[in-house]
Amino acid sequence: MSDQIRFLLNDTDLPRAWYNINADSPVAPAPVLNPATKEPVTPDDLAVLFPMNIIEQEVATDRYIDIPEEVREIYKLWRPTPLMRARRLEKALGTPAHIYYKYEGVSPSGSHKSNSAVPQAYYNKIAGTRAMTTETGAGQWGTALAMACQFFEMDLEVYMVRVSYNQKPYRRNLIETYGARIFASPTNRTSVGRAALAQVPDNPGSLGLAISEAAEVAALSGGHKKYGLGSVLNHVLLHQTVIGEEALKQMDLAGEYPDVVIGCVGGGSNFSGIAFPFLRENLRNGQRTRLLAVEPAATPSMTRGVYAFDYGDSAQMAPIVKMYTLGHDFIPPSIHAGGLRYHGMSPILSGLYNAGLIEATAVRQLDVFEAAVQFTRTEGILPAPESAHAIRTAIDEALQAKETGEKKVILFNLSGHGHFDLSAYSSYLSGQLEDDALPEAEITAIPERLPQVSLPA
Amino acid sequence: MSDQIRFLLNDTDLPRAWYNINADSPVAPAPVLNPATKEPVTPDDLAVLFPMNIIEQEVATDRYIDIPEEVREIYKLWRPTPLMRARRLEKALGTPAHIYYKYEGVSPSGSHKSNSAVPQAYYNKIAGTRAMTTETGAGQWGTALAMACQFFEMDLEVYMVRVSYNQKPYRRNLIETYGARIFASPTNRTSVGRAALAQVPDNPGSLGLAISEAAEVAALSGGHKKYGLGSVLNHVLLHQTVIGEEALKQMDLAGEYPDVVIGCVGGGSNFSGIAFPFLRENLRNGQRTRLLAVEPAATPSMTRGVYAFDYGDSAQMAPIVKMYTLGHDFIPPSIHAGGLRYHGMSPILSGLYNAGLIEATAVRQLDVFEAAVQFTRTEGILPAPESAHAIRTAIDEALQAKETGEKKVILFNLSGHGHFDLSAYSSYLSGQLEDDALPEAEITAIPERLPQVSLPA
Repeated sequence: MSDQIRFLLNDTDLPRAWYNINADSPVAPAPVLNPATKEPVTPDDLAVLFPMNIIEQEVATDRYIDIPEEVREIYKLWRPTPLMRARRLEKALGTPAHIYYKYEGVSPSGSHKSNSAVPQAYYNKIAGTRAMTTETGAGQWGTALAMACQFFEMDLEVYMVRVSYNQKPYRRNLIETYGARIFASPTNRTSVGRAALAQVPDNPGSLGLAISEAAEVAALSGGHKKYGLGSVLNHVLLHQTVIGEEALKQMDLAGEYPDVVIGCVGGGSNFSGIAFPFLRENLRNGQRTRLLAVEPAATPSMTRGVYAFDYGDSAQMAPIVKMYTLGHDFIPPSIHAGGLRYHGMSPILSGLYNAGLIEATAVRQLDVFEAAVQFTRTEGILPAPESAHAIRTAIDEALQAKETGEKKVILFNLSGHGHFDLSAYSSYLSGQLEDDALPEAEITAIPERLPQVSLPA
Repeated sequence: MSDQIRFLLNDTDLPRAWYNINADSPVAPAPVLNPATKEPVTPDDLAVLFPMNIIEQEVATDRYIDIPEEVREIYKLWRPTPLMRARRLEKALGTPAHIYYKYEGVSPSGSHKSNSAVPQAYYNKIAGTRAMTTETGAGQWGTALAMACQFFEMDLEVYMVRVSYNQKPYRRNLIETYGARIFASPTNRTSVGRAALAQVPDNPGSLGLAISEAAEVAALSGGHKKYGLGSVLNHVLLHQTVIGEEALKQMDLAGEYPDVVIGCVGGGSNFSGIAFPFLRENLRNGQRTRLLAVEPAATPSMTRGVYAFDYGDSAQMAPIVKMYTLGHDFIPPSIHAGGLRYHGMSPILSGLYNAGLIEATAVRQLDVFEAAVQFTRTEGILPAPESAHAIRTAIDEALQAKETGEKKVILFNLSGHGHFDLSAYSSYLSGQLEDDALPEAEITAIPERLPQVSLPA
């Protein structure tokens, strides 16, 4: 088996349950606060946005949560996804390390986002939701939810950050081909959008603003429209754990166990998806795998942000949560070409990072694209710029192993392909992409921009 | 197993040999003629374009030709490709037919073209070729050869039909990311290109013209550059038979055998790739599978063209071969959005069609895009417009089975994804795509545009 490079699982190996890190995490979850009252939210507060079955999942403490058969049937269109050994990359690096990657880009929508889009659409459908709303930045989440809503015959409105909407016409076309309606945010369809346009007529938009618009439409729909979020929340991270559960079986097929598991982080869903099942093995079965989250130097919420209570969106309509944050009004440098532009980080992941159970690092975009091109030219697959953050760090770990001679086993999540990101590659290859730096002043100013919260005793 | 929808094979099931239809075809191959002398070509005539190991493969008569280990190692990056049962499409159609598809879009370059690009680059590399040249229309072949040349560390020049070059910037970017150089054809780098530009300064280009340019560069390189063709020739069809060989094993896993095998045709390579192994079973083992080639109504070489000797390219530099042709100077209607624009058809496939061993049909583009959108919305995968010709016909076969109540087993080749074709989808969805009709006068005028050939006795 030593020359094997693909480790495949059959339909029958598709996980039957998601893994809930809340059952094993030693970190007590911080309360989630209503943005208006700053008091802990009630399920009723959340019910304007989400159906009750998803709210229940959000606060569940069971270790395993069964994947509904209707969801598994759709997962089978692309899952289990392949685990690959990057032998050609290893050879190019001259490293003794073994590099494995889990390839989520085989999903029809092109990324791991389908793993949560399908169950979210399913739970909404059975709860009686008639239409969904969402935001999308780089476009992966909007595409995934468009496919999922089509499968469950629900309408979908996608609010896409305007600058992405204009830069990525193919993403927009694909979302429309799946049957959803898509709008460049800020729009004049919401009071939040109209206010933003009144302030800045050619407003390029932001993820926080698009979230506010999608949430407003759902909240004011009289209950028949609900909102779907593609990252950050517990139930989203939960759905993504199919990645790590499969990877555990596949590493077993390969006869190895990873020393380090790597994933890029924006809100945290793809990293958590691959890492949490390995974290369970650390916490419960004595494994000692390093779990390494990679963020862009342009949006370094974990490595340079503040662990504090902050709003989930720029309009201060989303709940206040305790997380690593750059401030809810943070806008990443416009020279940053990839996604991963969210100002905060999943609260659950933030707690684990604060407790020292996972690690984080930040990488700069020219280094990321250099790694992306090396990966494309050795392994053939063009990665999404987001996923290339994980590749950069995997290569760095492999080069370190080359120096020390360590036969390290590296596993990273290749969360999506870059077929809709080729203009960024073109900019990089023609030398037009700049490195993304974040002034220190932006960091030091974070605390004063956070909401004042007095916690209940 | 009745609810299984993916039929996967492991590395160990990857075919060890290509299947050569020439060993079993009852059709004697017609001579290939030198375009200048109109005498049968000699290996030396071809040697300015191809290395000798590929020329030998072109005329081989062995039934099986071993796949070199170096090629198999690269095939393993994406092969064996999945065979899928389109249960969601079946349900949407309400048909008793079982619809299977072989999905070649999982190749890193996005289509079946990699199956021939990798061995062509390999054989060139071991023959001492230092650089390759090629043309590309829709971009699938150029992308595949760019990846393959990068893997074998050879330079590549791609001549891309100008109208596609302008319409598909992402294809161009991807080819550059793989490390190749790409030019909008006609260029001023060749005498053929300069002549074309002198006649029509804003010449949109054609596949025939791009072939002429790529071939000229190789022919005048003094032997260190060779030319690679992505379809039509015997060795290209041979390389594609891995598709059908895998599909035979996978249909066996599914416990069924196809009544009809369907593929789209431009030059004929993806159809031949899936069909020839099933044709072998027809010819040698008494199976009676219908083999159905689908062409666009805009370039109906088999269904409305002439079976005659014609040039392979518009500049009359490529060999004269006997094939179904619309005339070497044929230019498809510009409203036609897909690829499959070649004026002729693989000679070997033409002979089999003329002998009644395969069938052909032509479909119109609005019907093709309707099928493509239905497939996207049921199965999730966005097909290449070329591949969607096969989907259209598979759906038509399934609807026919619904009328008759026949439990037909349909297998089609989904030769690639449509991630770089979204502007065509956008045109279709906004009602801007027209149906592509070909005036009868274009057909009746074909014979007078063919070269005069007097065959040796």
